[in-house]
Amino acid sequence: MVTIDAKRLEETFRRYSQIGRTDADGLHRLTLTETDQEVRDLFVEDLKSLNLDIRIDEIGNIFGRKEGTDPNAEPVLIGSHLDSQPYGGRFDGQLGVLSGLETLRTFEDAGIEHRRPIEIVNWTNEEGSRFKPALMGSGTFIGEFDVTETLQHTDSNGVTVAEALEQIGYHGNESCEPREPYDSYLELHIEQGPKLEEADLSVGAVEGVFGMAWLELTIHGDADHAGPSPMHSRRDALVAASDVVSAVRRLSNRVAADVVTTVGELEISPGSINVVPAEARLTIDVRSYDDDTVAELVNRVEREVTAACDREDVTYDLDEIWRIPHTEFSPRVTQTVLDAAETVEADHQAMVSGAGHDATYLNETTDAAMIFVPSVDGKTHNEAEYTEWEDAVAGAQTFAEATKQLASRPDDV
Amino acid sequence: MVTIDAKRLEETFRRYSQIGRTDADGLHRLTLTETDQEVRDLFVEDLKSLNLDIRIDEIGNIFGRKEGTDPNAEPVLIGSHLDSQPYGGRFDGQLGVLSGLETLRTFEDAGIEHRRPIEIVNWTNEEGSRFKPALMGSGTFIGEFDVTETLQHTDSNGVTVAEALEQIGYHGNESCEPREPYDSYLELHIEQGPKLEEADLSVGAVEGVFGMAWLELTIHGDADHAGPSPMHSRRDALVAASDVVSAVRRLSNRVAADVVTTVGELEISPGSINVVPAEARLTIDVRSYDDDTVAELVNRVEREVTAACDREDVTYDLDEIWRIPHTEFSPRVTQTVLDAAETVEADHQAMVSGAGHDATYLNETTDAAMIFVPSVDGKTHNEAEYTEWEDAVAGAQTFAEATKQLASRPDDV
Repeated sequence: MVTIDAKRLEETFRRYSQIGRTDADGLHRLTLTETDQEVRDLFVEDLKSLNLDIRIDEIGNIFGRKEGTDPNAEPVLIGSHLDSQPYGGRFDGQLGVLSGLETLRTFEDAGIEHRRPIEIVNWTNEEGSRFKPALMGSGTFIGEFDVTETLQHTDSNGVTVAEALEQIGYHGNESCEPREPYDSYLELHIEQGPKLEEADLSVGAVEGVFGMAWLELTIHGDADHAGPSPMHSRRDALVAASDVVSAVRRLSNRVAADVVTTVGELEISPGSINVVPAEARLTIDVRSYDDDTVAELVNRVEREVTAACDREDVTYDLDEIWRIPHTEFSPRVTQTVLDAAETVEADHQAMVSGAGHDATYLNETTDAAMIFVPSVDGKTHNEAEYTEWEDAVAGAQTFAEATKQLASRPDDV
Repeated sequence: MVTIDAKRLEETFRRYSQIGRTDADGLHRLTLTETDQEVRDLFVEDLKSLNLDIRIDEIGNIFGRKEGTDPNAEPVLIGSHLDSQPYGGRFDGQLGVLSGLETLRTFEDAGIEHRRPIEIVNWTNEEGSRFKPALMGSGTFIGEFDVTETLQHTDSNGVTVAEALEQIGYHGNESCEPREPYDSYLELHIEQGPKLEEADLSVGAVEGVFGMAWLELTIHGDADHAGPSPMHSRRDALVAASDVVSAVRRLSNRVAADVVTTVGELEISPGSINVVPAEARLTIDVRSYDDDTVAELVNRVEREVTAACDREDVTYDLDEIWRIPHTEFSPRVTQTVLDAAETVEADHQAMVSGAGHDATYLNETTDAAMIFVPSVDGKTHNEAEYTEWEDAVAGAQTFAEATKQLASRPDDV
């Protein structure tokens, strides 16, 4: 069994957390900013100390390669992301990268032999806060996004991804694509939900990711003066929109247990205290591990929208703006995680993820899976994001053990 | 019976409607702009043609005085406002001022004798779109607003009322207050609701104005990721807000027939498609002619807010930001309107107004009432605002007749 240096991991985590640290002990480290440059420089230094072969690709993804005993074996890829949300937390992404770094340090110190090369990666712009889309580095790497197009995306100040990469010195020469087939990809990440905490477990072996649909609804009513317009003559877009919000909330209870439905955006116009709202625009986010359930939910949402708008005598446009099927991670890699958790005696369960991660894209090109560690109160994307340190260590321990198993595996015959 | 020149009124209305006319045949004539200056100049010209004694006060209200046969009698004041909403309609305000102008022209042409002086007035900034508050000219005139403070209010570009008045040359010398007691105030205005149209009538004799309360509600929940956060663990501010919107809509059905309740503003944050809304801010507008009903509605709103927020385990702040009792216009002046409508054979009814007008403030200093004419489909505050011309004429005819009655009245003994 591999035993990581928990104290070293904690010290490294503290040191990295200083870069972009907020007053409230959170992290503000937007992708491709000076703060991101600083943490990248530190990461590259740490990779150099391990004598890794370092590559930076044209989208800024940073790879460090540790050779194995068999130069012809397909490598194992491990990693996550070092960028953060605006005023986000210290654990989201960073804990995964540093668990990978600690794994390689442990292997180096203990002289642990592994047949396959191991590559560690920091993906550029996982968060999508400064530049759209999210998962930019991994998505481009597996061919989901065109490199040239992606480099031209701009932030709110009109700075392109290419310019930002140049400014911080991370516009690498390496082509943004796999140089060779990988054996597998493994990523540790915080759960960003409360399930592990509620089950009092330290580790989740992530078997897959929810499928989802995004809908955009615009409701058209009439702007009337709130005083002289009797209730019966109104066509109030907000009243219809509110019925939709309530229905979307209830729908999740009717179809299956593992379903989430959310109205995250709602804007009305004209938005004046004494004017009946003429228009309402809202978004609906529907997720389930079962693609048929997502499809059924979308149908039900449409029926609810029709009913709510008929009731209020208003019209609407409903568009599906995105739909992705669920992701099933590699059963082999997931089983390796479960076995590793058993070996290191971490309390664990298999589970699915409600949100996409870089691993979702990597799964399209290799056998991928993830390790989740608990998020206290399920909080994420804010400065209060927290993981109990013993859970973080249990996760990193599982991660190191699983990486050893993966990197030791013989080729299929 | 007084007979106005309907054709002249229509021509005058057309001419005035050219100033600030929009492509969609609406009116964009914000207070104290160059367009407002242009229409004021035309109005002053028209008053001069009638040899009226013109006064402009320090807030820009324009008065024109036609003497009566008794120089000691208290005058009758008639008028409305020439400013418009942004991309508003041609009838709101303007029709009342021009009905007053047509009344004075008719009196002049026909040599109609009246004991009391008649003053016509154009109130500054009735709409409140460019400068807050609405009803600025009449409110300052009756002492509701302090003149010095009001002159310092700014628009969104930081221009003060005083600067805007100087720029268009309407910062008058006259003190903004009544020089002497008035006998009465009469104002013609479009209804801005559908009641007259639904009853197929041309004229409403307005007996009073709804009382009202404005509430502001802020709901505090938690921002969670829409994917990994199970429904049971959420504290969704928008779900609670939507329950409040639905409850506010239903409340109006439970208490009395002549009650209106509106949520006109609703903003949520962070407002991201895949984030559970953490905060929602909304306003609630409650109106009734019965002040006890308004009070009861406010209590019921609070109970509904508590229930909705308990259900979603969120907290809230609920503030009452404004409450005004109902206004009862002068029974004498209202009766004069009803008699005049009878005389000129306009189909009419007594009614109350859901919205405040300059007449609401004038009622605090003299005997006031209003004449409503129908708004097609109840539409107002937009370019489609319309009144059938035969209804406008019936209203102006009633207005002229009522003005004659008021101006002929002997003093109380």
